[in-house]
Amino acid sequence: MTSFVIIGHRATTSGTFSLNDMPGAAGRMDILCRCVNTTFFLSHDLRRDTVCYLILSGGPDPEKTVRFTGETVRYLNPDERSAGSLIKKALAHTCTDRFTESTRGVEVRWGGLARLLEDVPCAVLDEHGEDIRTAPALPSGFLLSDHQNFTDEELHLISSLPRYSVGPKCLHADHTITVVLNELDRREANQ
Amino acid sequence: MTSFVIIGHRATTSGTFSLNDMPGAAGRMDILCRCVNTTFFLSHDLRRDTVCYLILSGGPDPEKTVRFTGETVRYLNPDERSAGSLIKKALAHTCTDRFTESTRGVEVRWGGLARLLEDVPCAVLDEHGEDIRTAPALPSGFLLSDHQNFTDEELHLISSLPRYSVGPKCLHADHTITVVLNELDRREANQ
Repeated sequence: MTSFVIIGHRATTSGTFSLNDMPGAAGRMDILCRCVNTTFFLSHDLRRDTVCYLILSGGPDPEKTVRFTGETVRYLNPDERSAGSLIKKALAHTCTDRFTESTRGVEVRWGGLARLLEDVPCAVLDEHGEDIRTAPALPSGFLLSDHQNFTDEELHLISSLPRYSVGPKCLHADHTITVVLNELDRREANQ
Repeated sequence: MTSFVIIGHRATTSGTFSLNDMPGAAGRMDILCRCVNTTFFLSHDLRRDTVCYLILSGGPDPEKTVRFTGETVRYLNPDERSAGSLIKKALAHTCTDRFTESTRGVEVRWGGLARLLEDVPCAVLDEHGEDIRTAPALPSGFLLSDHQNFTDEELHLISSLPRYSVGPKCLHADHTITVVLNELDRREANQ
């Protein structure tokens, strides 16, 4: 099982955002949607052994975490609006301290990075980390930021975590996930 | 300069499609939009040395080719609607036998794969090809299909072209582009 955790620093916690303006009023929700896409989609298939955690930190509510689980997710298509629609339903769902399902394989709870790191051991994907191609082993959880850098508070939380890099150029979060999964696919196939 | 050519078998040639329904009525235009994204976007930067050709074969007009050029493209944001909006403007633009610009760095002309292969030498990205990681050299042009397989007519046109694979699993076209560019980035950086 491989998990990807993406922090949406400005992503709204409200389930009323417009699917027609995800980069704007929804706080770059488009980035999180593309991360959901790259976590799960294969050609004419879904990865069932991956999980995607979205941390929405853009208010107006306190932070929420939305979890997509490949093994059980339904109604997910590759386009941004499809993931956006499932996120919107999760945010409109009653939020508690425990993950509760809004649609099949999509759940929501209160809490952000500090709480998530208690549950999901993560390494940080960062351009200064160890190259994923040459690392002897890779972790089962990866943390990424959206278009903004990690905040000081986040940097404090992750200061002792291992760091991995996907290559010489700094990529978007969703592209980074694609490259990590390609490396994991190759390791699994001994290729 | 690296070129990616993506065939949209059902993608509309009409500039009247709705940005709210790109997977449906526009003939999986969302796939082509994501290929534009992955061809150009770096974190807080654009790749200026890449070109993306979209072949739209879904009618109602004869085939059109839309070209995005990284060196000159403007008004392109990472979300699907942004690329979709520029494609829509290109399709609404007067189409001739020569590329003419609809917005900065985006052009359109009549013609499909047969004509394009005269201008852009391509290799085919295909799960049965030579592994891009171990190939001694990589080509400057790559051809991909959307969610549909190449047609018999297309297979005839590309039968003698070299083939490359990005790994053991069959990926979406946009994810494939990401993995190819990561390999090219690494080769450029000797990493």
